[in-house]
Amino acid sequence: MYRSHHCGELRATNINTQVTLSGWVQIVRDKGFMVYVDLRDRYGITQLYFDTERSSEALMQQAQKLGREFVVQVTGTVIERASKNPNIPTGDIEVLVKELSLLNKAKTPPFTIEDHTDGGEELRMQYRYLDIRRTPVKNNLIFRHKVTQEVRNYLSKNEFVEVETPYLIKSTPEGARDFVVPSRMNQGQFYALPQSPQTFKQLLMVGGMDKYFQIVKCFRDEDLRADRQPEFTQIDCEMAFVEQEDILNTFEGLTRHLLKTINGVEIKEFPRMLYDDAMRLYGNDKPDIRFGMKFGELNQVAQHKEFKVFNTAELVVGIAVPGGNRYTRKEIDQLIEWVKRPQVGALGMVYLRCHDDGRFKSSVDKFYDQDDLAKWAKITGAKAGDLVCVLSGDKHKVRAQLSALRMELAERLGLRKPNEFAPLWVMDFPLLEWDEDTERYHAMHHPFTSAKPGQLELLAHNPAAVKANAYDLVLNGNEIGGGSIRIHDKETQAIMLKYLGFSEQEAKAQFGFLMDAFEYGAPPHGGIAFGLDRLIAILGGQETIRDFIAFPKNNSGRDVMINAPSPINNAQLDELNLKLKA
Amino acid sequence: MYRSHHCGELRATNINTQVTLSGWVQIVRDKGFMVYVDLRDRYGITQLYFDTERSSEALMQQAQKLGREFVVQVTGTVIERASKNPNIPTGDIEVLVKELSLLNKAKTPPFTIEDHTDGGEELRMQYRYLDIRRTPVKNNLIFRHKVTQEVRNYLSKNEFVEVETPYLIKSTPEGARDFVVPSRMNQGQFYALPQSPQTFKQLLMVGGMDKYFQIVKCFRDEDLRADRQPEFTQIDCEMAFVEQEDILNTFEGLTRHLLKTINGVEIKEFPRMLYDDAMRLYGNDKPDIRFGMKFGELNQVAQHKEFKVFNTAELVVGIAVPGGNRYTRKEIDQLIEWVKRPQVGALGMVYLRCHDDGRFKSSVDKFYDQDDLAKWAKITGAKAGDLVCVLSGDKHKVRAQLSALRMELAERLGLRKPNEFAPLWVMDFPLLEWDEDTERYHAMHHPFTSAKPGQLELLAHNPAAVKANAYDLVLNGNEIGGGSIRIHDKETQAIMLKYLGFSEQEAKAQFGFLMDAFEYGAPPHGGIAFGLDRLIAILGGQETIRDFIAFPKNNSGRDVMINAPSPINNAQLDELNLKLKA
Repeated sequence: MYRSHHCGELRATNINTQVTLSGWVQIVRDKGFMVYVDLRDRYGITQLYFDTERSSEALMQQAQKLGREFVVQVTGTVIERASKNPNIPTGDIEVLVKELSLLNKAKTPPFTIEDHTDGGEELRMQYRYLDIRRTPVKNNLIFRHKVTQEVRNYLSKNEFVEVETPYLIKSTPEGARDFVVPSRMNQGQFYALPQSPQTFKQLLMVGGMDKYFQIVKCFRDEDLRADRQPEFTQIDCEMAFVEQEDILNTFEGLTRHLLKTINGVEIKEFPRMLYDDAMRLYGNDKPDIRFGMKFGELNQVAQHKEFKVFNTAELVVGIAVPGGNRYTRKEIDQLIEWVKRPQVGALGMVYLRCHDDGRFKSSVDKFYDQDDLAKWAKITGAKAGDLVCVLSGDKHKVRAQLSALRMELAERLGLRKPNEFAPLWVMDFPLLEWDEDTERYHAMHHPFTSAKPGQLELLAHNPAAVKANAYDLVLNGNEIGGGSIRIHDKETQAIMLKYLGFSEQEAKAQFGFLMDAFEYGAPPHGGIAFGLDRLIAILGGQETIRDFIAFPKNNSGRDVMINAPSPINNAQLDELNLKLKA
Repeated sequence: MYRSHHCGELRATNINTQVTLSGWVQIVRDKGFMVYVDLRDRYGITQLYFDTERSSEALMQQAQKLGREFVVQVTGTVIERASKNPNIPTGDIEVLVKELSLLNKAKTPPFTIEDHTDGGEELRMQYRYLDIRRTPVKNNLIFRHKVTQEVRNYLSKNEFVEVETPYLIKSTPEGARDFVVPSRMNQGQFYALPQSPQTFKQLLMVGGMDKYFQIVKCFRDEDLRADRQPEFTQIDCEMAFVEQEDILNTFEGLTRHLLKTINGVEIKEFPRMLYDDAMRLYGNDKPDIRFGMKFGELNQVAQHKEFKVFNTAELVVGIAVPGGNRYTRKEIDQLIEWVKRPQVGALGMVYLRCHDDGRFKSSVDKFYDQDDLAKWAKITGAKAGDLVCVLSGDKHKVRAQLSALRMELAERLGLRKPNEFAPLWVMDFPLLEWDEDTERYHAMHHPFTSAKPGQLELLAHNPAAVKANAYDLVLNGNEIGGGSIRIHDKETQAIMLKYLGFSEQEAKAQFGFLMDAFEYGAPPHGGIAFGLDRLIAILGGQETIRDFIAFPKNNSGRDVMINAPSPINNAQLDELNLKLKA
């Protein structure tokens, strides 16, 4: 037996007990006649004690020679500490060691195993097994476990069945790029790894499974942006015989349950917002509503004056920055530089200072009088002491730019409080979105999403106007889930695929099995999928998903710890009947 | 709202309630003035009722026109049935329908959606979504969910943390063949899909995670034998600061918990058997101990007589078949033919009839007298009325042959009762096994398994004798789990890899990250992995894992429903910098 207790559990009530502990040496404090060792395991730290009075010379030497991260087992007696440490749960006691055995040595770790380490990200990734010893990382993984257990318990209690769908499936080049897996037994043929279990969960609905969920890895071979992973985890859900309202209620219930059990936060009904309103008021389909700073559209009051920039813009729009009038001219110039960065892309920014005396001062005073500017303030909701920032230009672009500015300012103003939770349903997404590269419409959600009743006819003459039975769940400015009511009849699915550019043959080859299934009694159905990595990060009060993944990949899709991907040998290639191109 | 109740819940207490149901038409019984429809969903069947007295003509016609598997929604009143059906929970009532809407039509399914269907396996696989509508398949999937929930709850309560390990890892051509995944972003390089998360769970132990589990898909590109799947699910577990005994106790606890909560069976301590004894007594490392028929080795009593076949055999071994003396000569001849089938491979079989009067009659009476035969009976434990079957030859082969015969006879005799559960630990497996193809020793479990203390020195002169800290959990003649105490220091791991034929360079390239990790304070650790598919099948009283997998592949590794694997287009190959060989 390696231990009778772990390193987080001994208390004053254990004094005089004989115990055995195992763990890692956090630190050795050698005071000559006395040696203190902090012994650490997953559960905490317990102080070990040696002194020349009660410990043999050999034992003292053993203790003195221990290095950081050595693995040891000790047996001894719990005694009261002379000077107690109220900062740790075991701070009242220490263990007077009688026997010590070295279970394993350790080289000096390349970074400190402390809450605030001196290791850079790349180094910590390379030695991830050491990084995981650090309390914050370890706690994130335990936190992840707790959240997934709560998800499973809640859904299971609500009669959902977790069904495992296959990982070796078929490549469907719609949507993102697939990772493919060459088949040795069927040469020249490939499996694909699922981007999501979408078609399988729909088939489960056709199969009568009614309420399905799965916590499942999904794969997308995308050029990686920051904080995207080629493999990621979804809470994938589907229900049959439901309308949109049933799905929203069910998964609002799940999210409420998580906020309550994990974060101790009680939230009643989640607010709902139409997609069009989200874009108009926040320039974004996943607005962070923990704070205000809603957009005010200024076209009516700012155009048709002498200011050409605004007159030629499709949209003139501003936000009020609370207390922003305290910014110096230099700080405002820096803000202007910030919106002009290529990542944001604005051409410039007009601003309006709202002085405490009710007067206004703008960067375009030449063109606008105090009455004009008062209207700007009114529309953006600016109060005395605020600053109004105004951008103009193409509607889509300027909304995105102002949204980026809104988030940046909120961050700077401390308005994005990690322990405050503001969920929001965004509803009635467009069915289609225009893709600049391929110059055609793509499914905004996916090709299985149904249109709002009666709107499919709009496809012919105003495709952008068609709204879908699609919804996102947003939490603190992040999309944590998205779903839709699906098409469940073959004819509509065929129309949709045709519209998306599939020939009849392609549609049959790729989705024939689903369309066939729709002919054998498919029930109305719909669902949702949550991005588990992000959900967990946000519930954990953070935003970097990598911190909540045990073994993440870097931005080139590499695992730098195991060094993958890597070349394979020629025999393997031969067996697969494959050749690398020159 | 599509339904107020599901089809399994209405009872006599609901009479006179107005309800809405949705589901599939199981059957329509048209009696002219009255129409009965069985409406089915995941939860059960409710009878719908229409009659000319209370239903409009249009509604009667609607009901009469319904076909099998049509999807309908009905609203009506719960009424008492004239003739009750005690065989189903809803048998006291029916719903007098007021409104019926057809949610979706259905083509006639290619096989009947009944507990005993007329569909063959291949057809049912092709239309798996219809097969899942059948109660036995649906129940298997729900059963699987229940088992996995119990596993998760038990392990979570015992402080295990479920940690997701990556799916895109590195190819290590030791063991079975990897499925590989070409990387587009790192051309010429490949990920591999995990055969198991073995190295990652060991790294989690190095990382201090202490008690890990994961229910996880694993992948092996093997030539498929019957009832093997290229992707399968493991309950993967690892613990640090443990000895073998701790692991056995922990996972015996888990298995006991499952048998109790899932099957209602209470089993106290699991018996344990040494590998060598299992081989000697059952010819098999996963003996089914629900019944006896232990091997009796007959060399001492059957050799050195005139019977050359036995005299030249390495092993002469028999089993007593309870009541087998009632077999006719013809039946015994058929048994002999059975053991001579190439799948079994025996050259012949000697038998001994134990008559009720205490006399013996054997097929080799020419060489053995009654005293000789009495010894055979004694050693095999045969009683009056039994039949002793004796095989001889090479020890390894003859044990496998007699084991096959033992299982076949037990099956025929009804001794393998699906609702009886006999778990067994098999312990002290050999560290290595000889591989005929490559003519060298391979790791029997895997290269990370530790040898019994002090035995590593045997490697040089008697490698086959080295025993490992390795154990299997056997249930009803199936290996449901296997594990070991791992090597946790770099030097031993290096010796092991060298012995297994890895050059220093290969060892470093493939397992360098693990050996590096061992240098930074690796704790003693070990673990186990359960084959979830098989565990669930056995707990479900069955042996075919395919019946417990939602979307299984066939024996050629194909998903015949979605038709995968399949060719991918040239653009995809180009992006991956790959070419098919001619």
